[in-house]
Amino acid sequence: MKRLTTIIALFMSITAFAQQNLSFGQGPQPVSPEINSDNTVTFRMAAPDAAKVQITGDFLPSQSIETEYGTFDIQGTVDMVKGADGIWTYTSDVLKPELYIYNMIVDGVKITDPLNVYTIRDINNLFNVFIIGGDRADLYKVNKVEHGTVSKVWYDCPTEGIKRRCTVYTPAGYETSKKKYPVFYLLHGIGGDENAWSELGRAAQILDNLIAQGKAEPMIVVMTNGNISEEAAPGETSKGFTVPTMDLPKTMDGYFENAFPDVIKFVESTYRVKADKAHRAIAGLSMGGFHTLFISINNPDTFDYIGLFSAAVDREQYNGLKTIYENRDQKIDRLFSKNPKLFWIGIGKTDFLYENNTALRGVLDSRKYKYTYLETDGGHIWRNWRIYLSEFVPLLFK
Amino acid sequence: MKRLTTIIALFMSITAFAQQNLSFGQGPQPVSPEINSDNTVTFRMAAPDAAKVQITGDFLPSQSIETEYGTFDIQGTVDMVKGADGIWTYTSDVLKPELYIYNMIVDGVKITDPLNVYTIRDINNLFNVFIIGGDRADLYKVNKVEHGTVSKVWYDCPTEGIKRRCTVYTPAGYETSKKKYPVFYLLHGIGGDENAWSELGRAAQILDNLIAQGKAEPMIVVMTNGNISEEAAPGETSKGFTVPTMDLPKTMDGYFENAFPDVIKFVESTYRVKADKAHRAIAGLSMGGFHTLFISINNPDTFDYIGLFSAAVDREQYNGLKTIYENRDQKIDRLFSKNPKLFWIGIGKTDFLYENNTALRGVLDSRKYKYTYLETDGGHIWRNWRIYLSEFVPLLFK
Repeated sequence: MKRLTTIIALFMSITAFAQQNLSFGQGPQPVSPEINSDNTVTFRMAAPDAAKVQITGDFLPSQSIETEYGTFDIQGTVDMVKGADGIWTYTSDVLKPELYIYNMIVDGVKITDPLNVYTIRDINNLFNVFIIGGDRADLYKVNKVEHGTVSKVWYDCPTEGIKRRCTVYTPAGYETSKKKYPVFYLLHGIGGDENAWSELGRAAQILDNLIAQGKAEPMIVVMTNGNISEEAAPGETSKGFTVPTMDLPKTMDGYFENAFPDVIKFVESTYRVKADKAHRAIAGLSMGGFHTLFISINNPDTFDYIGLFSAAVDREQYNGLKTIYENRDQKIDRLFSKNPKLFWIGIGKTDFLYENNTALRGVLDSRKYKYTYLETDGGHIWRNWRIYLSEFVPLLFK
Repeated sequence: MKRLTTIIALFMSITAFAQQNLSFGQGPQPVSPEINSDNTVTFRMAAPDAAKVQITGDFLPSQSIETEYGTFDIQGTVDMVKGADGIWTYTSDVLKPELYIYNMIVDGVKITDPLNVYTIRDINNLFNVFIIGGDRADLYKVNKVEHGTVSKVWYDCPTEGIKRRCTVYTPAGYETSKKKYPVFYLLHGIGGDENAWSELGRAAQILDNLIAQGKAEPMIVVMTNGNISEEAAPGETSKGFTVPTMDLPKTMDGYFENAFPDVIKFVESTYRVKADKAHRAIAGLSMGGFHTLFISINNPDTFDYIGLFSAAVDREQYNGLKTIYENRDQKIDRLFSKNPKLFWIGIGKTDFLYENNTALRGVLDSRKYKYTYLETDGGHIWRNWRIYLSEFVPLLFK
C-alpha cells in the first residue's frame, strides 16, 4: 500500500507543479517567511526573471505621505536583494512579539508571498500573516489548550426582512457541559464583516487562551455583520464573488443598531445562555464602537459590560434613523443611572479618532461617571484592537 | 454623522493605499475576473513595469509534459497582452458552467490575481476561484435559500490520545427544530484536511441547494481530517503557520480508520442524530475513498450508504495496522451479507486510479454484489469530486 500512497502523492505533486514558482525537480523550495532564532525574519522570493522585488509590511518603519487631506503615515516598503540563485531575500530587524502582516511587490505588482499560503482578507486587501510569539502575542497563537467551536450561522433578521450571517464562538466544553453561558457581542469596523474578528482579530485564539489560563470566564462570543444592507461577508451571499467595498448603504445610519435585538433574540433562543443584563457584554472597534455606544445607550437594561475600541463616538447623526442617535448625552445619563458594571474605552495615541474619544471622556468626566480607560501607542490598527480585546475580556462576567 | 463615516472610510482607504497595486488617486481599479454575458471571462492585471504576465488555470487547454515517471497533463498557461495603459488582459473562450481555479504569473513568479481577493488553499497551493453559473454549477453557488451552519469543532480522539478538529455542517433549521438527523461522514484526499470539502468541495453550498430543492434529506455532514498524526489543518495547530505538506506519517497506515469510531462517538453524543446504520453514510475522495472502503468493511454494521469517489482501493497493505487492511475481500463479503442500501463508485475515465477501480468492480461483479457506478470525463480533479458529491447526496437516507 505504501506504493499506492507514493503514486498518489507523486501524481498530486506533478500535476500541481505548474502551481509552484520553482520548476519541478529543482529541489526543495526556499522557505518564506523564516522566523530566525533571534526574532529577525527572513523573507524569500524565487524570481530569477524579475527586475525588482520589494516587501511592504507593518513591521517596517512607516512612511509619511502628503495628500490633499493631510499627511498620513503608511506602511513602509523596502527592496529585497537578488542572489546569484535568482532568490530575492530580505531580513527584518529583530521584531517584537506580534501578529504581523505583509505583501510583496514584484515589478510593481502588489502580491501575496508565493511561498506563504497563510493569507487573510481585510476588506479588499489580501495579505500574508505571521506571528512572532512571546508576551501578549502568545494569546494570538493556537496553543495546546482546549479549543472552542467557531461557527458560521445564519439567523433571521425580521426587522430588515433578511437572513444574516454571524460568527459564533462557543467555548470548549459547551457542547457537552449542559451549563448556561454569558454572551459577548463583538462588532467590527467599517468595511469589515462577520469574519473580521475571527481572522485578523484572532478572537477565537484569544478567548481559548484566556479561558485556558483561567483569566476569562467561559463565554459565547457573537461576531455580527455590521453592514445591515448585506446578508453576509463578500463571497458568502448570492451576489457571488464581487469586489468588496467600504461604500455600503445604511452602514452608520441607525438601521444596524435598530435591528440588533433580532440577533440577541436569535442567540438567546438558540444557545444555552444566561439571558440577563449581568451576563451580556458588547464591544466594537471603530464603526463597531459607534454601533456599541448607540446600541447600549438605546437599550440601557441590556448590557452590563460595554467596550469602545478606537470608537467613532461623534454625537450627532444627520440622516437615517435619527431616533437612534438623538439625545445621546441624555441617553448616556440614563445608561449610567442603571449602573453598568463596566464602561471601557481604549484608544491609540495617534488615532485620528483620539479627539473624538477625548470629547466623549469629557462628557463622562463632567458627570463623574466611572469608566476604564486604556491609552496605547499607535493608531487605528488591528494591533491595538487585539490588545483591547485581550484586556477587555478578562474583566467580563466576574 | 455622514461626515465621520466619510472620514473613517477615507482614512482606511489612504492607509490601505500601499496595499493596492494602482496608485492612490489613479481612479477606479480594473476588475478581474470579469465574467462577460457570453460566459467568456476577462482577466486583468495592472502591471506597467512587468515584462511578461501569464495566466494559468483549469479552464485553459491542458498541456502534456514528459517526466521520468511518464507523460502527464498539466494545467495550461497563456500569455496576457499588455495595453497602452499598462493593464494586461486575457479573455477566455466561452466557458461551461463550473467552479474554476487560476493563478497569474508575473515575470516568472506564480501569484494569485491581485484584483481578486477570493482564494482557496489546497495543500500548499493558493489559487483564485470564480464560478460560471448554470446547470450543475448553480449547486456550487451561494443562492437565496436557507443556509446551514458550518462549524469548526474539536473532539476527543482517545485512540490516538489527541484532540482533533473537524468541520460540521448542520442543515438549516437544525438549531431550533428539535428533530434528529442522519449523519454523512465526508473524507478528503491525501494532503487535504478538514477544510477541503467545505472550500474547494463547496459541500455546504451543495447541501444547502440540494436540500432547498427537495432533492436531499436534511442531514448533518461531518468532514474529518484524515491525517491522523495531525490535530488539524495547517495553520490551525500549535505548530503555527508551517508549510503544508503531503508527506505526513500514518496517512494510509490504518491508524485513521482504527480511530474513526472516536469521531462517530463524538458526533452521536453531541448532535441530535439518528444513531443507527440506516442513518449513517460515509464517502471520500482518493485517499478518503480508501479510508471509506476500509472503515466501512471493518465496521459492517455501521453504514448503510458508502461512496467511493476516485478512490484508491488497492487491496494490500504492507505496513502500519495490518488488521485494518488484511482479508479485504472476505470483509467485502461480510459487508454485502448485511445488505447495505447503497455502495456507490465514481471514477473519471482518465483517472490514474481507473484500473484500480476496475479491479474492485471485478471483485464486486464476480460476486454479483449490487453497486451504483458513475464514470465521468476527466481525471483526479475536484470538478469530478463535486459532481460525485452532488450525485451521491440525493441517494442518501431515502
